Amino acid sequence: MPNHRFTKDLPFSDAEYWRRLIKTRAAMAQQGLDALWVTDPSNMAWLTGYDGWSFYVHQGVLVLPDADPIWWGRNQDSNGALRTVWMDDDRAIGYADHFVQSTERHPMQDLAGRMADLGLGKARIGVELDNYYFSAKAFMTLQSELPHAALIDVTALVNWQRGIKSEEELVFMRRAAKISEKIIAGLIERVEPGVAKNAIVAEIQRDAILGADGHWGDYAAIVPLLPSGSDAAAPHLTWDGEPFKTGEATFFEISGCYRRYHVPLCRTIHLGKPSDIFVRAEAALLEGLESGLDAARAGNRACDIAVALAAPLERAGIERGARCGYPIGLSYPPDWGERTISLRADDETVLEPGMTFHFMPGLWMSDWGLEITESILITEDGPAQTFCDVPRNMFIKP
Amino acid sequence: MPNHRFTKDLPFSDAEYWRRLIKTRAAMAQQGLDALWVTDPSNMAWLTGYDGWSFYVHQGVLVLPDADPIWWGRNQDSNGALRTVWMDDDRAIGYADHFVQSTERHPMQDLAGRMADLGLGKARIGVELDNYYFSAKAFMTLQSELPHAALIDVTALVNWQRGIKSEEELVFMRRAAKISEKIIAGLIERVEPGVAKNAIVAEIQRDAILGADGHWGDYAAIVPLLPSGSDAAAPHLTWDGEPFKTGEATFFEISGCYRRYHVPLCRTIHLGKPSDIFVRAEAALLEGLESGLDAARAGNRACDIAVALAAPLERAGIERGARCGYPIGLSYPPDWGERTISLRADDETVLEPGMTFHFMPGLWMSDWGLEITESILITEDGPAQTFCDVPRNMFIKP
Repeated sequence: MPNHRFTKDLPFSDAEYWRRLIKTRAAMAQQGLDALWVTDPSNMAWLTGYDGWSFYVHQGVLVLPDADPIWWGRNQDSNGALRTVWMDDDRAIGYADHFVQSTERHPMQDLAGRMADLGLGKARIGVELDNYYFSAKAFMTLQSELPHAALIDVTALVNWQRGIKSEEELVFMRRAAKISEKIIAGLIERVEPGVAKNAIVAEIQRDAILGADGHWGDYAAIVPLLPSGSDAAAPHLTWDGEPFKTGEATFFEISGCYRRYHVPLCRTIHLGKPSDIFVRAEAALLEGLESGLDAARAGNRACDIAVALAAPLERAGIERGARCGYPIGLSYPPDWGERTISLRADDETVLEPGMTFHFMPGLWMSDWGLEITESILITEDGPAQTFCDVPRNMFIKP
Repeated sequence: MPNHRFTKDLPFSDAEYWRRLIKTRAAMAQQGLDALWVTDPSNMAWLTGYDGWSFYVHQGVLVLPDADPIWWGRNQDSNGALRTVWMDDDRAIGYADHFVQSTERHPMQDLAGRMADLGLGKARIGVELDNYYFSAKAFMTLQSELPHAALIDVTALVNWQRGIKSEEELVFMRRAAKISEKIIAGLIERVEPGVAKNAIVAEIQRDAILGADGHWGDYAAIVPLLPSGSDAAAPHLTWDGEPFKTGEATFFEISGCYRRYHVPLCRTIHLGKPSDIFVRAEAALLEGLESGLDAARAGNRACDIAVALAAPLERAGIERGARCGYPIGLSYPPDWGERTISLRADDETVLEPGMTFHFMPGLWMSDWGLEITESILITEDGPAQTFCDVPRNMFIKP
């Protein structure tokens, strides 16, 4: 019987969490690890259910081969862990507040002491050297406090376990997709010359959080991106209070989010008659998307999608130079990608049913940009399924 | 004459950026640094104006004693740098996309090569070992690629330069304060038993981004936090689709944001008649806030605020155990604090005019929580000024 003081509303079944833990332990065993220290908040949540905006302080989950994971974080956030993780209450451990942003003490000193108490002083411990929120200082402190432990770089080890989605996860992603559809529909209706960009973002965020089909909306791991005209050459600009203008294209990169699961979608709205450059680029991009979707089949490789996309673009004289997609699912800021596979020419990862990607061939040229994308599911057979049902074209408004 | 291909809408005057650079260079000189590698996106923006949601890949700003800073990041994001930084266009350098999330290459290899080309191969280079987004792997790669350079930990060096706000910055913060006031007014009007939490957050986000007083709203570095009832023991829970309930208190931690400048504010709404515990806690907290504001004077120390707050709380039997505030200003996710001073008993930093804090004495007990806070400005004389004008009490609605 679980020992829980609080009623919990876990997103997933016990079986789903066990599936994840067993998979992760198998990967640990392959690396000969005695323990795994997970700091990426997306990995923490995927393994334990932990959900809170506390990743601005040091925290993590310790995965062990033969005992339930341990959540470790700031004392005040252990209250959040007690309410959101599936483990027994005694698996949530807090550190004292005087470790927070101190120049004399580091939270990793507390963690190292606890690891030593668990007999891990001479263990092989996997750490995420290049995942979010595990700072260089955190690593160095942990290593100096546990001088006889071997800290092994297992960046993205857990991320890789997340690649193939379960049916439970796909239910969440389909709910997120409905939110993305709603956001794009609102954009097509509302964007007009003279309307201020922030006024449009206000409605995007409202639509995103109101949710769709009776399901509430969560915050996306990235804010809406919507550069216009020449600025659309820069993929990651946010917004200001300037109006949309006739003669300019704006791409909108957004994602609905349901309980941390994302289904991003991008569409471009052109106000006024587009130039020949846009018309030709759109045609080539749509052909490339179609080819890429057809190549996105179980048994093919990630690079096959990239190569299929590139051919019609090259025929139109467009060289992209950037990857054209990444896996998606559960995420926390600053990224909604899973940071494992990249859809690009040198990635030969074999596609498997249940993998999910944002197929994202953004065109960012020196002074214009165009984004038309699809979030996709690799199926048992046939081309990829798109999560969203939104007309796949550049929207032209007078 | 500056060499800029694009028209820019820099948030601040040239004089303001020079003030910042000169201050930072003086701090570098004190540490004997030949160069400073800045990865914290808030520090990057404060020094150069760079603004984009690209901090999910490796990037940074190189500050030099005798030449303009260099922005370095992913190729596609150099388009964003060209449009947002004050330096000449040739000071924005991009790295090739095949470095992104590669297991064979690391972006720091590109950076190290460029540093070597600048003659920094044997230099003393400051790095932010415990700031955001500088991963352990990034540090180790940089060190191994520049084996003769000394990488010196200067975590928070730039953050400390940001503490005292200029008049230009205070203008932005006052605009953010108006947005915070508007958000809280909306909450007091809209929160009712039976209303879903996500529906309220949808309106918070809409109000935040519509802005106030004719100024547009930016995204805050933290999403709204609004746990209810027992969950309010956990400070960093976000929301779901459950309704607000009679008999429960909910605290709302929000921040208006104008061009990345934050003025957070928290208020608590109690639906139905509050218990004696809440009534007594509110009275003690208000007394503590009043005492703390009075202690928040130039010449006093950070700890004086914490001690002044603690006395009435202790008399009411409330021991907090967490710091009661932090500096605020320009920020990017995941935190809107500046991570330098902490308002707590062992921080003896002397308060100076122009410093700005979120005085944040949240009460997170084992099964209830109460937040009533103020964002404040330390003035030349007298007690701190509050940025917002919102009744300082727990709001009780039937």
